[in-house]
Amino acid sequence: MYVFGKNVAKELISNNKEIKKAYILNTLKDDTISKNLTDMNVMVSYLTKNEMDRLEKGNHQGYILEIPDFKYYDEKKMFSNLEGNPFLIILDHLEDPHNFGAIIRTCEAAGVDYIIIPKNRSVSVNSTVMKTSVGALDNVKVVEVTNINNTINKLKEKGVWIVGTAMENSVPYDEIDYKGSTAIIIGNEGFGMSNLVQKNCDFIANIPMYGKINSLNASVAAGIMIYEVVKQRK
Amino acid sequence: MYVFGKNVAKELISNNKEIKKAYILNTLKDDTISKNLTDMNVMVSYLTKNEMDRLEKGNHQGYILEIPDFKYYDEKKMFSNLEGNPFLIILDHLEDPHNFGAIIRTCEAAGVDYIIIPKNRSVSVNSTVMKTSVGALDNVKVVEVTNINNTINKLKEKGVWIVGTAMENSVPYDEIDYKGSTAIIIGNEGFGMSNLVQKNCDFIANIPMYGKINSLNASVAAGIMIYEVVKQRK
Repeated sequence: MYVFGKNVAKELISNNKEIKKAYILNTLKDDTISKNLTDMNVMVSYLTKNEMDRLEKGNHQGYILEIPDFKYYDEKKMFSNLEGNPFLIILDHLEDPHNFGAIIRTCEAAGVDYIIIPKNRSVSVNSTVMKTSVGALDNVKVVEVTNINNTINKLKEKGVWIVGTAMENSVPYDEIDYKGSTAIIIGNEGFGMSNLVQKNCDFIANIPMYGKINSLNASVAAGIMIYEVVKQRK
Repeated sequence: MYVFGKNVAKELISNNKEIKKAYILNTLKDDTISKNLTDMNVMVSYLTKNEMDRLEKGNHQGYILEIPDFKYYDEKKMFSNLEGNPFLIILDHLEDPHNFGAIIRTCEAAGVDYIIIPKNRSVSVNSTVMKTSVGALDNVKVVEVTNINNTINKLKEKGVWIVGTAMENSVPYDEIDYKGSTAIIIGNEGFGMSNLVQKNCDFIANIPMYGKINSLNASVAAGIMIYEVVKQRK
């Protein structure tokens, strides 16, 4: 997987992460990052601006690094380790990597135990997610599942309450008790939760809104829900 | 100001907004949006992919529209209209337009009265903000001020409590009383609040975090704070 950006490079270096190869803008040959990478015995290629842009369209800031692909946490292992009152977040076909990155940060800060995403038609851990999650990825367990409804059903068998989020047929988010085992589902940015997932929920929560447009960004909605759980469990 | 994207175009049309001029990808000549714009007597230029990309690097999806610049709400008018228990958000040199857009959405949904931003070294209402705020901009009052500390001092004279956000020397956000007139300050994504602003606060709030990285996205942190206020005022 390719990641990029000056801060990402700095962070990988300071955390002594495995870096397979580095591509650096040739005008930055003598800077600290280049030196650090050479000290770490990383193979570095110095490229022109054009060559860098061809490799990575995003805002690479002169640094592109190849690192091992992200390792998802094993679903079976998650189920065998579900203890106490676990707190899980299920992302039902989220699309925007910036939202995913922001949610990973919130989950890390709030101590969420597992983040579950479906394998298909969903954002996965890519370089944008890595960049926007600013290091939080190392401290969260992301589980990629084949069938989100199967996983939800298995969680229910394990005694986990499934709380969906939607405006219709729902109760205010702060009227639900989250002290027991809880999984909160955040739906797709445009379409919300899928029908089958919605049917599988034990509760459906809404965040009360008082405007005309009444549309919260998915990562903001997730943050509000997650910190309500944190508050109740304090 | 140029705005772009299919949904933005659709929304401007359905809300009958003033559109000065439209640039549309020539392969989309016969679609509904083109027809609607012609019906609205908007001057439309059909351009090639290359011409469109030159006009707007972002993901224009074939639609670029020129609309009147955003009209900020007048600061003096805000001060003379401050009644009841107003709820304000002050963005202390926020940089990321996606964060600003997400915060505008949250403020609209939560019924925040005014959003205050400084004129210099701050994100302003641009096309990305317009796009990410999905129409919420029409229903919020954004006030651009020359000197954020002067404005904070004037707010204090009017009896508004100023609540900053920082990790150090602060109390948990949910231990503060927000029922009276309140302004919440959200700091810059990298540096937080500036020193002088921090000194001007009546309270400083933190959002408790339990991880290692412990970094919340600015719009997520704003969302958690804003909905705590909403909850207390219910």
